[in-house]
Amino acid sequence: MNVRPLQDRVLVKALEQKETEKGGIIIPDTAKEKPMEGKIIAVGNGKLSENGKRLPLEVKKGNKVIFGKYAGTEIKVDGEELLLMREDDIQGIID
Amino acid sequence: MNVRPLQDRVLVKALEQKETEKGGIIIPDTAKEKPMEGKIIAVGNGKLSENGKRLPLEVKKGNKVIFGKYAGTEIKVDGEELLLMREDDIQGIID
Amino acid sequence: MNVRPLQDRVLVKALEQKETEKGGIIIPDTAKEKPMEGKIIAVGNGKLSENGKRLPLEVKKGNKVIFGKYAGTEIKVDGEELLLMREDDIQGIID
Amino acid sequence: MNVRPLQDRVLVKALEQKETEKGGIIIPDTAKEKPMEGKIIAVGNGKLSENGKRLPLEVKKGNKVIFGKYAGTEIKVDGEELLLMREDDIQGIID
Amino acid sequence: MNVRPLQDRVLVKALEQKETEKGGIIIPDTAKEKPMEGKIIAVGNGKLSENGKRLPLEVKKGNKVIFGKYAGTEIKVDGEELLLMREDDIQGIID
Amino acid sequence: MNVRPLQDRVLVKALEQKETEKGGIIIPDTAKEKPMEGKIIAVGNGKLSENGKRLPLEVKKGNKVIFGKYAGTEIKVDGEELLLMREDDIQGIID
Amino acid sequence: MNVRPLQDRVLVKALEQKETEKGGIIIPDTAKEKPMEGKIIAVGNGKLSENGKRLPLEVKKGNKVIFGKYAGTEIKVDGEELLLMREDDIQGIID
Repeated sequence: MNVRPLQDRVLVKALEQKETEKGGIIIPDTAKEKPMEGKIIAVGNGKLSENGKRLPLEVKKGNKVIFGKYAGTEIKVDGEELLLMREDDIQGIID
Repeated sequence: MNVRPLQDRVLVKALEQKETEKGGIIIPDTAKEKPMEGKIIAVGNGKLSENGKRLPLEVKKGNKVIFGKYAGTEIKVDGEELLLMREDDIQGIID
Repeated sequence: MNVRPLQDRVLVKALEQKETEKGGIIIPDTAKEKPMEGKIIAVGNGKLSENGKRLPLEVKKGNKVIFGKYAGTEIKVDGEELLLMREDDIQGIID
Repeated sequence: MNVRPLQDRVLVKALEQKETEKGGIIIPDTAKEKPMEGKIIAVGNGKLSENGKRLPLEVKKGNKVIFGKYAGTEIKVDGEELLLMREDDIQGIID
Repeated sequence: MNVRPLQDRVLVKALEQKETEKGGIIIPDTAKEKPMEGKIIAVGNGKLSENGKRLPLEVKKGNKVIFGKYAGTEIKVDGEELLLMREDDIQGIID
Repeated sequence: MNVRPLQDRVLVKALEQKETEKGGIIIPDTAKEKPMEGKIIAVGNGKLSENGKRLPLEVKKGNKVIFGKYAGTEIKVDGEELLLMREDDIQGIID
Repeated sequence: MNVRPLQDRVLVKALEQKETEKGGIIIPDTAKEKPMEGKIIAVGNGKLSENGKRLPLEVKKGNKVIFGKYAGTEIKVDGEELLLMREDDIQGIID
């Protein structure tokens, strides 16, 4: 069973935060707005511009990303908890 | 009797949520904004852009979709309860 | 005596709601925002786009339509109560 | 002495409401937002679009129009009370 | 000493209101938002549109104009009190 | 040490107000929003329009300008207090 | 481990403020909104315009910049505290 995000939306699997990972990315406790890490499961086709062209997304399936803690809507697909959000809620890609 | 949604609106039949469906999509109780499942009954012709062109919708009649719980306006057509909403209220398509 | 709506406005005659019509459209009592039925009496020429072209309306004179309960401004023309509203307040056309 | 409205503005002379005119337009007492009748005295040249073209007004001098009760700014020209408002405050033309 | 307004701004000298001038323009005491009369002292070059073209102003130096009572910023140039405001605050030109 | 303003921003050195300068510009005590005088120290390259072109600023380095009292952000460059603000906060140029 | 900012975002390393640096930039204690200094670690590819073109950023990797104190989201990359913010939060470049 599959969920295809619409327009400029993406489907994200939130990753558990390893509080003490060495050499990795750790969100400080004092962060003003706590960002989270996740993995892109699926991306939409992009918004339609006023000229009728799709504006493609910058993130790709498989990207590890950073997004705001309160971004998106939770859904459960085949028992797995996922998040549907707009690409603009994604702040960066982790390589 | 038929209802044709105007512009970028769609007509949706909400589907009953199966709380314990295995291998399916289940909305968790703890969801921040509870999304729902539905089926597209009819779609509008799309918004008119500033250049006078219709911007076609991405969803099609028959698509199974996810939308926000408070989206749309309830109407009753031939005894059937339906929802009229904008395509932007639809977050994803379920295959 | 005639009223021509300006720009993207339409003139609508609200129809009385038949609470128990069979096989017709009935607005449920529990509707979040109660939509109403009406008939398009007259339509404007459409808004002028930034390029100076009129963007024609999708609804036509004679269309039976669904619109939000609080849409528009009431006027009385030759003793008949009518509503002046924007086309965007019209949610669908009933065939 | 003359007042030329600027851009998309119009100069309107409000007409006295005949409460019981037969076969005419009467604003019901129960109207949510009471519209008024008036006569267009002068019209602006229209707004300048982003492309540098004037977007001409749809109303003309002499048109009898309907507008919202709280629209516009009152001025007195040669002892006559007039209203300066934007064309968008005009909802329809009465023929 | 000279002040050149920037973009779509104009420099205005407010005129004293003659409360009882006959055949002239008198602002009624009961006006919702009291407009004022003034004379255009200088005009800006106009805003830059998205295409990089200046959108010229409709008012010219020397025009007698009507503007809202609370429009603009007061400055004193060579002892004379003037107002710097946007052209959109100017509602009409008096001939 | 140099600060280059970004996009449509400018760097301004506020000038001390000479309360009683004769034949100059004096801000009246009763001004609704007290404007200030300053000198442009540096200007940005301008905003990027939707078409990818820079929209050049109207003010130039060295211009004596008028700006709103609460405009901009204070910074100290080589001991000198300066203000970083958007060009739109500049209301006029003094010659 | 690397973080690539998306669209018009940048990754910034905040610099410690030297309160008494001579001939440098010192943010006065009385500043209305305290700006900070930082160094650009990475920049996004720019926003996609309505025409489908990327609008490149004005700041480059390595630039020393000024930004608002409350701008951005804190993240920790390989033990280093960084800020993810939009380019519009950057007010100027320090040479």
